[in-house]
Amino acid sequence: MTAPLAGLRVVEATSFVAGPLAGMTLAQLGATVLRIDPVEGSVDGGRWPLDRVGRSLFWAGLNKGVRSVALDLRIPEGQELATALVTAPGDDAGLFVDNTIGRLYFDHDRLRARREDLVHVHIQGYADGRAAMDYAVNPRYGVPMLTRHTDLDRPTNHVLPAWDIATGLLAVSGLLAGLRRRALDGQGSRIDLALDDVAAAHVAHLGWLAEAEENGRDRPRLGNHMYGAFGVDFACADGRRVIAVAITRQQWRDLVRVTGTEKVFAALETAHEVDLDEEGARFEHRALIEAVLAPWFAARTAAEVLDAAKSTRVMVGEFRTPSEVVAAYRRGEESAVLVDVAAEGRPPMLTATSPLRWDERYLETSGARPFGSDTHWALSEILGLSDREIGSLADRKIAGSRSVPGRR
Amino acid sequence: MTAPLAGLRVVEATSFVAGPLAGMTLAQLGATVLRIDPVEGSVDGGRWPLDRVGRSLFWAGLNKGVRSVALDLRIPEGQELATALVTAPGDDAGLFVDNTIGRLYFDHDRLRARREDLVHVHIQGYADGRAAMDYAVNPRYGVPMLTRHTDLDRPTNHVLPAWDIATGLLAVSGLLAGLRRRALDGQGSRIDLALDDVAAAHVAHLGWLAEAEENGRDRPRLGNHMYGAFGVDFACADGRRVIAVAITRQQWRDLVRVTGTEKVFAALETAHEVDLDEEGARFEHRALIEAVLAPWFAARTAAEVLDAAKSTRVMVGEFRTPSEVVAAYRRGEESAVLVDVAAEGRPPMLTATSPLRWDERYLETSGARPFGSDTHWALSEILGLSDREIGSLADRKIAGSRSVPGRR
Repeated sequence: MTAPLAGLRVVEATSFVAGPLAGMTLAQLGATVLRIDPVEGSVDGGRWPLDRVGRSLFWAGLNKGVRSVALDLRIPEGQELATALVTAPGDDAGLFVDNTIGRLYFDHDRLRARREDLVHVHIQGYADGRAAMDYAVNPRYGVPMLTRHTDLDRPTNHVLPAWDIATGLLAVSGLLAGLRRRALDGQGSRIDLALDDVAAAHVAHLGWLAEAEENGRDRPRLGNHMYGAFGVDFACADGRRVIAVAITRQQWRDLVRVTGTEKVFAALETAHEVDLDEEGARFEHRALIEAVLAPWFAARTAAEVLDAAKSTRVMVGEFRTPSEVVAAYRRGEESAVLVDVAAEGRPPMLTATSPLRWDERYLETSGARPFGSDTHWALSEILGLSDREIGSLADRKIAGSRSVPGRR
Repeated sequence: MTAPLAGLRVVEATSFVAGPLAGMTLAQLGATVLRIDPVEGSVDGGRWPLDRVGRSLFWAGLNKGVRSVALDLRIPEGQELATALVTAPGDDAGLFVDNTIGRLYFDHDRLRARREDLVHVHIQGYADGRAAMDYAVNPRYGVPMLTRHTDLDRPTNHVLPAWDIATGLLAVSGLLAGLRRRALDGQGSRIDLALDDVAAAHVAHLGWLAEAEENGRDRPRLGNHMYGAFGVDFACADGRRVIAVAITRQQWRDLVRVTGTEKVFAALETAHEVDLDEEGARFEHRALIEAVLAPWFAARTAAEVLDAAKSTRVMVGEFRTPSEVVAAYRRGEESAVLVDVAAEGRPPMLTATSPLRWDERYLETSGARPFGSDTHWALSEILGLSDREIGSLADRKIAGSRSVPGRR
């Protein structure tokens, strides 16, 4: 199968999570993505997590399949080469993603003067242009205040950079929407996308802000209880924990059946004059439900619980650490979205391909490429420079050649 | 400006979060999106959060601008109408998003037999077709085990359905990538996307699995400390909390300067033989840095801290509850991505438009439409049925007419 974005060429100049994820997602769908990296290597080249010898697993994970063109943007000649790459002709080119750092070097109007139909996605921190990052934005929209356990004073900022991920994926959608518009009417697009706006918008889409306003108060802190239905974690006989969730009526009835608690809940429904078939009622009586179900979980290992749940519609998830996911992967138990990927300068790494499957197959993915691996190719193939010209740029350290991200 | 996806027509048949978010995101970019709803109203019509009189704010938030066509899919005639809508001709049609529930009624091969170039995104729980949901998937990939505070035995499952959001946004990217491929070579696409794969892939992309495997252990639980750089929350004089993050060297130097701690850190660097200009060193010495900085925060209100940070590159975020975000919005202090949107059957609601800005403007968004609002339009305009035929379908309850989501 031809990869869906085969033939498309995107230039990307970003760092941290959202921009690189956008570039990698496009590359995993088959686009040729060139990242413009500094000649001395990207700031992400040493970012944690690191492997045992200090090489960045962050960098190797978020740069898979993306080409690296190393240019010194602080020098006008380097900037001009980058601008020429961004605005190079072709129906399948003229696509550009940058972020706040890129703004120093890539002015939208100047780029558009060079290529009027450029589709340019600019990723920001705040919509006013100030820098921001996930870990500092997430607290602003209530997530850590609601996540904290009922017995903790301190809010709990979760470790997943969820807004970075959402921003990267929205940047991809924005770019492809801009491409579709251009194919239709030849127009270019200036698209701005702020991490802070992504957090605000999605919390608002989910109804959290309207709820606080219209009900005159914040939703309660719930520990691990799910809001608005029944879902909470249970301790199993082997000390492991699982979460069990029943949102639909069918899931709830299956949960009652598999735990053998029909008679207890029937009696409780009568005593409390409540119909637990309603998801809101299950939420209101969550502590009672948890207490009734707990002994069933406590009498079984997590494996037994998961096994029993298989014949039902109840959704059960086991709490695992990353090491436990790795062990399950090595036993062949995990989804084929996880793969070992070879990369230059380091041993093959456990990482992933795109979760988008085409014709029932995962697309192939390749590893991260050393900084500057594609400088010569880009300057020669796209800009038509001669070997001599490229050599001169390299001698003057305006264009960089291959370098493996250094050990710390 | 013409909205980027104006003219495009997408049929969607999903519920919960990921699918509706995909549909709404496409609608906010200008596509005409029809959701096929059950005649009796969607299961999401009563989903929490609810307003004071029991109307779903979840539904109103995630259905903005999406048309509703109510059909009884349990009856062959209703199924045939839905299939005809999905496979209706047109270069800008033949685009379909469904989820696990849709699978009962929409077989991919049967749809492709009707329209060979259909672009079909099928959202799943697990890649093998079993149901799953965010709250039960998230524990499987280590996030709650790493999020929990160091003094808690129980893992902490964060409240944000981050994987649902990522899945919805990837579905949009998949659909647009499939559309681009079709425009190029006329091919249709079968695209499957599992929530569980989205979680596995992104945790792997971030390097968390390779880290655990290559280093032979899981990263430590860090409370609210950021991993790999310096970032943690501080208590302010007024009892509020803020998070302060310094990832780059410039941010770190600004943090030291604004807090007047240059001499202390210089002495500590000498005493510990460490260079705190390195982000990994800041991470390793995070407890010490936190202790040195805490008095500066404790002596100032959160507002004073935020004000002082403005003249620096340090990233500071205030912990707010949703109510506090609402209050700031009403004072005119929030991003214009947040908007009040009118909808039939309920008062205007505080929600959001798309965070993707085009030509420096947010696109307009409209409110959720009552179930079945667009049944007549779709059957008449797209399928060419007469008023009499539509009347007969309505009489037999195969096609539904308008109904406002009920109060509980």
